[in-house]
Amino acid sequence: MIVVIGGGPAGRLGAMHLAQAGAEVLLVEQRRIGGQCLHERCMTICALNDVARLVEYARTQKDLGILDSVPAVSYPAIRRRICEVQEKLSSVLDAETRQAGVEVVYGAVGRLENNRVFIDDEEARADAVLAATGSRPAIPDIPGLDLSGVYTYQTLPAMPDLPRRMVIIGGGVVAAEFAHIFQAFGSEVEIVARHGLLGGLDAKMRSAALRDLAGVGIREQTAVASIEGAGRVRSVLLADGEELEADAVLLATGLVPRSESLQGLRKGPDGAVIVDLRMRTSAEGVYAAGDVIGPPYLTPAARREGVVAAENILGHDTVMDYAGIPQAMSLRYDYAFATVGADGGVTLSAPAPAGPGSFWDVAGGWAGLAQVRVDPGSGRLIGAAAGVPGASTLLSYLGYLMKRGVTVDDFDDIVEVHPSTDGVYGLARYAAGMLKKKE
Amino acid sequence: MIVVIGGGPAGRLGAMHLAQAGAEVLLVEQRRIGGQCLHERCMTICALNDVARLVEYARTQKDLGILDSVPAVSYPAIRRRICEVQEKLSSVLDAETRQAGVEVVYGAVGRLENNRVFIDDEEARADAVLAATGSRPAIPDIPGLDLSGVYTYQTLPAMPDLPRRMVIIGGGVVAAEFAHIFQAFGSEVEIVARHGLLGGLDAKMRSAALRDLAGVGIREQTAVASIEGAGRVRSVLLADGEELEADAVLLATGLVPRSESLQGLRKGPDGAVIVDLRMRTSAEGVYAAGDVIGPPYLTPAARREGVVAAENILGHDTVMDYAGIPQAMSLRYDYAFATVGADGGVTLSAPAPAGPGSFWDVAGGWAGLAQVRVDPGSGRLIGAAAGVPGASTLLSYLGYLMKRGVTVDDFDDIVEVHPSTDGVYGLARYAAGMLKKKE
Repeated sequence: MIVVIGGGPAGRLGAMHLAQAGAEVLLVEQRRIGGQCLHERCMTICALNDVARLVEYARTQKDLGILDSVPAVSYPAIRRRICEVQEKLSSVLDAETRQAGVEVVYGAVGRLENNRVFIDDEEARADAVLAATGSRPAIPDIPGLDLSGVYTYQTLPAMPDLPRRMVIIGGGVVAAEFAHIFQAFGSEVEIVARHGLLGGLDAKMRSAALRDLAGVGIREQTAVASIEGAGRVRSVLLADGEELEADAVLLATGLVPRSESLQGLRKGPDGAVIVDLRMRTSAEGVYAAGDVIGPPYLTPAARREGVVAAENILGHDTVMDYAGIPQAMSLRYDYAFATVGADGGVTLSAPAPAGPGSFWDVAGGWAGLAQVRVDPGSGRLIGAAAGVPGASTLLSYLGYLMKRGVTVDDFDDIVEVHPSTDGVYGLARYAAGMLKKKE
Repeated sequence: MIVVIGGGPAGRLGAMHLAQAGAEVLLVEQRRIGGQCLHERCMTICALNDVARLVEYARTQKDLGILDSVPAVSYPAIRRRICEVQEKLSSVLDAETRQAGVEVVYGAVGRLENNRVFIDDEEARADAVLAATGSRPAIPDIPGLDLSGVYTYQTLPAMPDLPRRMVIIGGGVVAAEFAHIFQAFGSEVEIVARHGLLGGLDAKMRSAALRDLAGVGIREQTAVASIEGAGRVRSVLLADGEELEADAVLLATGLVPRSESLQGLRKGPDGAVIVDLRMRTSAEGVYAAGDVIGPPYLTPAARREGVVAAENILGHDTVMDYAGIPQAMSLRYDYAFATVGADGGVTLSAPAPAGPGSFWDVAGGWAGLAQVRVDPGSGRLIGAAAGVPGASTLLSYLGYLMKRGVTVDDFDDIVEVHPSTDGVYGLARYAAGMLKKKE
């Protein structure tokens, strides 16, 4: 028997892969299947953003005189309805997992002592273990965190209604995504980032993304001294002495691996279980995958890691490949990028063509951004980025094509559906023309 | 010098390709650059549909209690604003075309007598000609077409406001797209199709598409006897004697090539200029591309044909490839499909996963459809279809991958952005598992 601890994307996909290959698999899930991805992170942001985008697009179209009004949002209804949909999706995942042949045990705690596995303190006999216990919010050391009205993505479902003023602490993708959402819903939002906001992004992509955050107060290189209030949060005191009024504070300060129950495995300083590219831990027969092994903290990477672990448990020599994995952020538009291979190459950027979802933005002079990075010697596309409606789907396939060595010449054979917001296509063809001229 | 007649997708892209290669190019455009695609068809439908989708999604979210209201649409404002955006896009295209080195002449008529080319009746000396004069609406033979209130996609911009009742005559993609749009805007819409509605679609895709047309009256296998009224349209009389009240009638009865000005070329019975796969007509040095050579009447095919013609004019031997060209329809969701190679193979369908744009539809039990056709011997993906938000971008790249011989095993290396509405990915991976088991 193989024991899988954790029913998030890594554990669930790994378990299904094992069961489909004929292995006997027991999946131990403390709460509900689907992990943080379904219940607290990706899908929650997707749900909130589907409403936020509608409200924002309605504002644009109202400004153009096309619509007569902008609907108002009932936040309590959103919260209630999100849970209903998540329950529905969870039961779909449960059925899918069992149908694949996995035995699922809910409400039990799985833990490890080296390669001995315990389920609710009873030792289980396992031929192999896949540990996929996920992550939790990283909590910074700030006085006042215990005040009511201070949330992480995990406790946010308890927020009863829209705050008038929300302060978001953090400078990453999640901070930007929540700022965009609550700003669209009508809250006044301030972001306080210790370093830069979206500092990891290319400069042009970043400034495109910042357009979507117009109206959000942004403080960078700014530390928080404390969160103030009596019982309830009242304000956020910054290290420079400024005080920001707040009815709610959201901590978007990153993630840490949830590995306390995995004893005896080699771990990094942040608690991440150390694995090789076959997802093998330091303990014989014990594999780990997903957030518990640390960044990139992405569902698709976690899923793939789960499958790679399963493959190796099954005796196939499969190695995890992190090249070309697309990363994405959902604001008014999708922002997505992927890269393969080394640095270098020539970078080209251009406004994206107007298409579904961006037609009316042209009235304001904007339809998004596209970017390519090309190796001039080989003509290979080695990086791509887009900030347009639908960029995420686009980059999933571009990431793959780049791994397969696609050249800008190859784009001659791609036929788009028109109209399309895909500006990468046009840039790649333009680059092909330039390279031909150079010859 | 090379003369290009017509500044739509085929002529414009062909002209730019020639100029970028160093040729002297004169583009003659009777009206405005961008063709019907920008001014009357693709972009107009995109513009209207961006509003229609917003209104429909607002309805769903209002039903869930998330939004307090559904905005009402001002149709006159839409019409006015569409023209403004189209002018803006047209001036972008004009600048792009000139920047590529093309000389553009507006307001002139280009015509051919065999391989002699005339511009406003003055003969021009040309080394080669690319004829890309496009198409026009096919008008059926029905009494009453001259009544006020009867439109084609070309005259629809003159419709002053939303009709209370609209009858759409036709059974193709355009009939479905306009029905969806005007139904969302609040008109009562009836479709009358001589044969079937969307008869060319696979049965499952068709029934998915019909979900988006719920509320639209659909009459199939039904002929129109006449359009009735005195001065203004009042009703549509069907061959079976039924009379449908109508304030507006939209003819969506297909296209015919616009080839009257191209004399001396071999043409088909519908007037389509006959070309080979190098876009050569029966006249030496005369090439044709785009709608004037007949179906598929798709912008991306027209663009590609224009480029293929240009390549051959430049002396490169390039052949047009129609395999894997994605076709698409925009209703509430995008419906897109592509296929390569022959018939046969195993077809699999499944509900699509919930993702951006479809999250709240899960509450109603629906997040779209995905379909794959796989050759079981080779594992090659030979057909794919999706009815989800974003399906068009997806199928553009799937169409290309299928041309390149992608197998379902290869999907192991594709890493999605999560959440994604792409159900083709999951189906391909499922098919790969099945084929492995069979071995």
